Parts: sequence; structure tokens; C-alpha cells
Amino acid sequence: MSRHAYEYGTPDGAARVRASFARQGAMATIGASIDAVEPGYCAISLVPGPAVSQQHGYVHAGVVSAIVDSAGGYAGFSLFPATASVLTVEFKVNLLAPAEGERIVAEGFVVKPGRTLCVTRGEVHALRGDRRKLVAVMQQTLMVMHGKDDQ
Amino acid sequence: MSRHAYEYGTPDGAARVRASFARQGAMATIGASIDAVEPGYCAISLVPGPAVSQQHGYVHAGVVSAIVDSAGGYAGFSLFPATASVLTVEFKVNLLAPAEGERIVAEGFVVKPGRTLCVTRGEVHALRGDRRKLVAVMQQTLMVMHGKDDQ
Amino acid sequence: MSRHAYEYGTPDGAARVRASFARQGAMATIGASIDAVEPGYCAISLVPGPAVSQQHGYVHAGVVSAIVDSAGGYAGFSLFPATASVLTVEFKVNLLAPAEGERIVAEGFVVKPGRTLCVTRGEVHALRGDRRKLVAVMQQTLMVMHGKDDQ
Amino acid sequence: MSRHAYEYGTPDGAARVRASFARQGAMATIGASIDAVEPGYCAISLVPGPAVSQQHGYVHAGVVSAIVDSAGGYAGFSLFPATASVLTVEFKVNLLAPAEGERIVAEGFVVKPGRTLCVTRGEVHALRGDRRKLVAVMQQTLMVMHGKDDQ
Repeated sequence: MSRHAYEYGTPDGAARVRASFARQGAMATIGASIDAVEPGYCAISLVPGPAVSQQHGYVHAGVVSAIVDSAGGYAGFSLFPATASVLTVEFKVNLLAPAEGERIVAEGFVVKPGRTLCVTRGEVHALRGDRRKLVAVMQQTLMVMHGKDDQ
Repeated sequence: MSRHAYEYGTPDGAARVRASFARQGAMATIGASIDAVEPGYCAISLVPGPAVSQQHGYVHAGVVSAIVDSAGGYAGFSLFPATASVLTVEFKVNLLAPAEGERIVAEGFVVKPGRTLCVTRGEVHALRGDRRKLVAVMQQTLMVMHGKDDQ
Repeated sequence: MSRHAYEYGTPDGAARVRASFARQGAMATIGASIDAVEPGYCAISLVPGPAVSQQHGYVHAGVVSAIVDSAGGYAGFSLFPATASVLTVEFKVNLLAPAEGERIVAEGFVVKPGRTLCVTRGEVHALRGDRRKLVAVMQQTLMVMHGKDDQ
Repeated sequence: MSRHAYEYGTPDGAARVRASFARQGAMATIGASIDAVEPGYCAISLVPGPAVSQQHGYVHAGVVSAIVDSAGGYAGFSLFPATASVLTVEFKVNLLAPAEGERIVAEGFVVKPGRTLCVTRGEVHALRGDRRKLVAVMQQTLMVMHGKDDQ
């Protein structure tokens, strides 16, 4: 499932994604930032710490899920027309290893764009120095909300 | 799938769940509190607001997922022996309606306990006055981490 | 999640479901039959045997999945208008116990009907004499294919 | 998520997978055959036709699910030691396009091997002449059943 040659849904695709992300209070609350946007792709990351931890000190599965849900959502949204907003219909995440390290990076990739639905997959890696460890994988369905402004 | 007649895995089952929850920094960060614990059941809730919102002002799908993941996890953990900790293997959530209202309540229910794995399901409701609207459903697999203390 | 008071999408809702099921060659091939249809509900079952088994002699996870996918799909379809067909967008199934016994019964229940999407959940039980054992649970998203005839 | 450099769990890894597949009556019933086995990888395919169809004549979502579940299961099983069998804990599949064509090929890839659990992902393509269309993606959790012979 290589990265396909997608095109932004609007001329200002990347800026539009970043503006929408900036309106997500939840992402600020957990300290997440947007690292990269490309057509059909988005990366969101955060730094592990007590504020996002579970009982053993690793990043909480729900927080890992939150950033990979957003990464998938914005990967899809980058392809949507100006008149459409994005909604997560559902997603499924497998937690593969403890999310710990210097940075946790969630990436979303569009697998199948569509007029009404858009399917993405996601990967979350934990970074420490040069090492990059896969800690979660995700599969997600998005809805293209035509006629609903993103704001 | 009615609530089964489960028994706590330890005499102090409910207190053990509440103590573990209190160690989850992520739950405090998003303002979640634990409402109820019963054998094989746990309810966790939060109050909607900008700090947990997505771009349209509803509670972020990732935050909804985080509380229902924890609710399912603690539903399972309530049945575990004293020498075991809990880990989310995977979960899948469907978002059914915008999460908005006075309070968002996530409930986890054990569907199938087991020695190594435990399967739960979850429901999330949005409360406003007397109204209770179903906003998400979840299905989850937990691992019983024998020999791993919860702290 | 009790069974809601739904109404058929067409006056001949149950017959419409049974006619569509009869056109599913795959269900005949695995020996599945439709046991019950109600608004927002459908039950499909089969008899275990070598023709539907996996390597240990239990009913194959894929076969269990196939009947619960169909049960969920027809639970949803029973509520659709005459001009719409049904499509499975995605589903997730947890296998809880070996599927063996005299009969395997999959039930689908509508959780959230909608104009474009419909969410269902499913349960699969293995029957032996008076005993009824839960062997799988499912969560599913369907698409309402407006303007597409079911035939 | 590239194909990793895995090694068979036993010297006769590929033969062991094929022998186990041959014991799955369900695969024979739906006309599925095993196309390829590599360490951590398995491909299973079938020819579309009325015997595996849904009401519109496409391959039934449940049949697509059955072959990709088996492909993922055998991708994992290829890495298991001689004393272990494989069990599907759960899987989730997204159906992306109608499954029609000359052949439907399901591929399973190990994402994360483990002592107790093994996570895989799957892809299903429809082939027609030179064209290869992605029709489904899957994410799956397997259990390594230590001490349980595969037969």
C-alpha cells in the first residue's frame, strides 16, 4: 500500500488542514502538533509525559488513538473540496508496543478516497534517537460532509 | 448482551480500579472522572468544552475514544487477580452522533472474560437534561498482564 | 442496547429481506438459512460440519463472519426504503469461543439507522441442546445505496 | 509497512501452512486455493461466481473476509513454532469496491509477531487482465496457541 499520487482538494490544501487542526482544542490539550501535510497524508506528534500517560507511564492508548484518528482524518480532509468537512465514521486501532520515547508520531494515509466515504490507514511510531519503533496501526472510515463548512 | 453476574477479581476491586484510574495522567488532562465501578463494568465521564473539542466544537472523536477505551479497560481490570495489570490490545469505535451536551458518559461492559484475553464492549451517551443520546459504540480486546503490577 | 421499536422501510419488509437473501449464492454454498426477520433485526444460522470448518473442525472464523455480516446487513436493509440497496462498508468481529455445536446462529441488530449510513452490532451463539454459548460479537457499518435496486 | 525479513517458525514452514490450509473444509467449499506462502506472508485466492456471490453478483463481503482472514492467519502461522497452532482473536475489514473480476486475491502480512499475540494486515485485490484493483483492507489479531497441535 504505497503512497498514491493524490492531489489536494483545494489549492490551499495544506493550509486548510493546518487551520482546521488549530481549531481542535483537544489536540492542543494533549500537546499534539501537526508535523507534515501532503495530499492524502498527515503526520501529528506529541512528546510523552505524565499529562498524556496511562497508569504505567506510557502514552495512554486513548491518546495514541486520538492523534492517529486526527492524522487519518486530515489525510482524508486534504483531498476534500472546499465545501466539505470531515467526520470520523469509525476507526480501529491495534496497540503493538508501549508508546514511550522522545516523540510519538502518528501518520495517516489515504487508502481509498471517495465521494461520500474515504478510507485511511495509520501508523504510530515511537522515536528515540535514531530508532523508530512501530507502536500502533489503525484502519479508519471517514465521511465527506458535503455542504458543511469546516468552521 | 445483558450485564452478567461477575465478581471482582480482588476483594478491593472497585478501589483498585479507582486507584489505577487516578494514576492515568491522560484522564486528568482531558477532565475525565470515574463515575461508577461494578464487577465487569465501569463508567467514565467528562464535560464537553473547548479543551476537548474538534474543529466544530463537538467532543473530539479521539477523546470519546479515550474515555470509552478506559471504561472498557477498567471494566475488564475489575475482574483481574491482584497480580495482573491490564493492556488494550485493540479497539474499534463507531461514532454515531455529535458528542455534545452537558456530560459525555462512556460505559464499558465485559462481554467475555478470560485468562489471557478479555473482550469488552462500550457505549458512549451524551446527556442533556433528561435526554440520553447514544453517540458511540465500541468493541475492545484487552490483555491480562499476569505478573505485572498495575503501578 | 435493547432492541428498539423500528418499523420496516417497506410494507413487505420481511419478504424483501428473504428474497434478497435467496439471491446470495454464498449463503446457500455455506448452508446458511434465514431464521427470523423483524424490523432492524435478522437471524441467520447454519449447521457445523466439515464443509464449513477450519483445521480443528470448528466452524471457520470467516464463515462465522460471513453469516454475522449478512445478519447485520439484513437487519439494516429491513429498514431501508424500496429504492435502496445495502452495502457493507466495514465490520469488525471478535471470536470468543470455538464455534461448535448443533447450530450456529448469527443475529444482527440495528444500533443506529441513518439516511446514508447504518450501524449494527451482531452476536453469534452456538447452540447445543438447551445451551446457548456466545461465540462471536460484531460491529458493522452499512451504506444505504439510494437509487440502486437490490436485484 | 514494508514486508519484513521474517523467518519461518519451523524448517518446513511453507509445507506446514499448506497442510493446515488443506484441512480447512471451508476454504474448499468456497473454492479458495493457496497461491503463495513466504515467512510472514500468505496469499489465498478464488474465482468469482454465483456460488460465492451476494445479491448483486459480486463476491460476498463475508467470503472476501473469509479468505483475507485465512491469509492473515497463515501469514502469522508461518512464523509459529512447531508446537503452536493459530486462532483468530478478531479482525476488521473495510470493503472498498465491488469484488468482481477474473480472480480475487487476498494477501496477509505480519505487522507485529509476538509470543502470545500476532498482528497482521491484509489486502484483497480483484484481478482482470493486467488490472489489479484494491477491493478490501483488513487488520487482524491472532493468538499463538502454544501446546495445541494444528491437527
